[in-house]
Amino acid sequence: MFEYRITARDGAARRGVIRTDHGEMETPGFFAVATRAALKGLDPGTARAAGVQALICNGYHLAVQPGPGVVAAAGGLHRFMRWDGVLATDSGGFQVFSLRHGQVADELKGRRRLPNPPLPDPPPLTRGPREIRGSRGVGEGREQDDPLEAVRIDEDGADFRSYLDGTRHRFTPENNMALQRSLGADVLFCLDECTPFHVPESYTRAATERNARWARRCLDAFSELGMAERQALYGIVHGGVHPELRRWSATEMAAMDFPGYGLGDCLGESKHDWYRVVDLVCPLLPEPKPRHLLGVGEPDDLVEGALRGIDTFDCAMPTRIARHGQALHFGLPRFRLNLTRAERLREDQPIEEGCRCSACTRFGRAYLCHLFRAKEMLGISLLAEHNLAFTARLLSRVREAISAGSLAELRSEVSQPVR
Amino acid sequence: MFEYRITARDGAARRGVIRTDHGEMETPGFFAVATRAALKGLDPGTARAAGVQALICNGYHLAVQPGPGVVAAAGGLHRFMRWDGVLATDSGGFQVFSLRHGQVADELKGRRRLPNPPLPDPPPLTRGPREIRGSRGVGEGREQDDPLEAVRIDEDGADFRSYLDGTRHRFTPENNMALQRSLGADVLFCLDECTPFHVPESYTRAATERNARWARRCLDAFSELGMAERQALYGIVHGGVHPELRRWSATEMAAMDFPGYGLGDCLGESKHDWYRVVDLVCPLLPEPKPRHLLGVGEPDDLVEGALRGIDTFDCAMPTRIARHGQALHFGLPRFRLNLTRAERLREDQPIEEGCRCSACTRFGRAYLCHLFRAKEMLGISLLAEHNLAFTARLLSRVREAISAGSLAELRSEVSQPVR
Repeated sequence: MFEYRITARDGAARRGVIRTDHGEMETPGFFAVATRAALKGLDPGTARAAGVQALICNGYHLAVQPGPGVVAAAGGLHRFMRWDGVLATDSGGFQVFSLRHGQVADELKGRRRLPNPPLPDPPPLTRGPREIRGSRGVGEGREQDDPLEAVRIDEDGADFRSYLDGTRHRFTPENNMALQRSLGADVLFCLDECTPFHVPESYTRAATERNARWARRCLDAFSELGMAERQALYGIVHGGVHPELRRWSATEMAAMDFPGYGLGDCLGESKHDWYRVVDLVCPLLPEPKPRHLLGVGEPDDLVEGALRGIDTFDCAMPTRIARHGQALHFGLPRFRLNLTRAERLREDQPIEEGCRCSACTRFGRAYLCHLFRAKEMLGISLLAEHNLAFTARLLSRVREAISAGSLAELRSEVSQPVR
Repeated sequence: MFEYRITARDGAARRGVIRTDHGEMETPGFFAVATRAALKGLDPGTARAAGVQALICNGYHLAVQPGPGVVAAAGGLHRFMRWDGVLATDSGGFQVFSLRHGQVADELKGRRRLPNPPLPDPPPLTRGPREIRGSRGVGEGREQDDPLEAVRIDEDGADFRSYLDGTRHRFTPENNMALQRSLGADVLFCLDECTPFHVPESYTRAATERNARWARRCLDAFSELGMAERQALYGIVHGGVHPELRRWSATEMAAMDFPGYGLGDCLGESKHDWYRVVDLVCPLLPEPKPRHLLGVGEPDDLVEGALRGIDTFDCAMPTRIARHGQALHFGLPRFRLNLTRAERLREDQPIEEGCRCSACTRFGRAYLCHLFRAKEMLGISLLAEHNLAFTARLLSRVREAISAGSLAELRSEVSQPVR
């Protein structure tokens, strides 16, 4: 079962509910990132109590470890990780292609601030299978297996090496659907190549076109495998920061009539870049279908995304910054309170007055700071809980603001100087 | 307030209750180790729910980080770490002297299995202050500060270097009592030097005698600082594996009339060594006072200790082995289930059938094994919870067996081939 129902609107923003076999998710809502079937340092029960509605795991990582057979033997991903709420799996394409493009993940999310290195012209994309090489490939048409080559793409799919043991794996749209079927998440995404910011438009164009062909194959496999009854496949809109490519991709995806849509690929270097992409894409997507903005989740991003018609988000930031001693906090630059700084040892108050997470209701900043300085794991768990509770609480305010027609006011309250 | 009341007996074993300003602790009972004011990877609320009655922190570590001023400013250690149950602090002497003797910690607990390296004759102990050097000291009477020298002992106290930044600190019986007063735990221990197994008897004799003088000074400072109303100071019996020294130390300590007693110092290389020490010492201690066996906590140790009249234990093992993927389990060699082994990925059952900890009631072995193989912190937290719940459950059975007069049967059930 998969249903999406809009219950309120405020301009382009929508409030709604996603219903699955594993419960409901209010939207705008957030998928907390559990890449390897675990939130980093946080018990799923604690996460649920902190307001986490949904998790997203990664097909690539789970295919490599523990392997789909283990998850299937355990009765699927929900049962394996004991999460009985809404669950999504990403195809893993993003991670596979990160191998190809180095630090592509940082670039895609606009976190890259250094000058872009010069890139050679992309390899031609039309010569057929096995001729498109990963960034570490040193030649074409070689018969020998290059141990340094991390990813190899052809029209049919992508070969990649396990980050664990170097063994070769292959993703095709068809076997990726079979993988995600065996994992059994409620929401899944098409296999796609994500392009980084520094590639020429011609590269992004070719990838966008191939991604559309792969999306069709994913949808066909999804139907043939009889998955539609219990799972929802989201098509992903590509095209980087190029309006023409984005428009083309959105129109193609809309025509395929997916149950939901992801906004993926490179979203640019600045927040303004992705605002433009979302402004352009959302109106081209079928109105009654949910829209997921992949990998975006800063507090102001959630409000800006909702304002533009985004329904769900996912982002590793809340748990990632927790590992570095950073707590989300309104009113501070970049919404960050740094709990590793020695002056916090003298601060008795909680991270944030009024926050009802168990970290804030029980512990003072002095203790949390001590935990980080003493390298005690407990600090990471407590900040992960706070950061996810903060995100859940903000999205709850976003939903209420949509119902009240006051999302613009919430934006004024939350917004920060935009990069 | 500090009270100890015996409620049942079974041979030398006693069942009882320790009452403090921060609640009660049933005995035989266990202090879980929270060296730096945190259980490794485990939320104190979760620990409490798993049956943890009491925690023990380390004065040395807390003196170095965050420093006693921070803890005092936060209102003492209970409030700083938000633990409102029974709390103990070790003096830190054990850790300070570990610096002097290298891997002394392993030796003290009988974990050392390699042949002992030859040791030079100990420095003379009677020439007065500043002449006894740490193991890295290279001469006597030098004026210059040797940056490599980790510990320097004299009759008055011990100089040591911070493991964090190399700054010099000094412990004396008097300032150590002041430190432990500012921390504010319910139970505290005298400053002492722990001797390792490989030193000659003459070294242990001199240390044992000095420890007795330090114990008297600790007790005097404890009284002068007016601590007796809210805290209980335990004297520690020394003497290594030497019956004559143990007898002398136990008699000296008993005469000082402490509120409770620790059995410390080197307990030998094998379990039989410490059985003999405990068998010898317990009858020499005042019958109505609680007896704590320092740093011992394997499952069979708890039963063997209780049988010999030990009331409380502390040990880092349950949380330490959790970090290495080991779960406590009855009936397996050394009570260990190794959750890092790939075959566990196919095991759907919990760690231990019937265990009511949240790890066992919620998760299967396959998932826990995956967490360790994927290096997910959550696995550590879950095993720490299980191992502390296991320990609490075993001690609950020990207490019931004492009331029922059946502790010998429980020993037959639990015992393993002894090293």
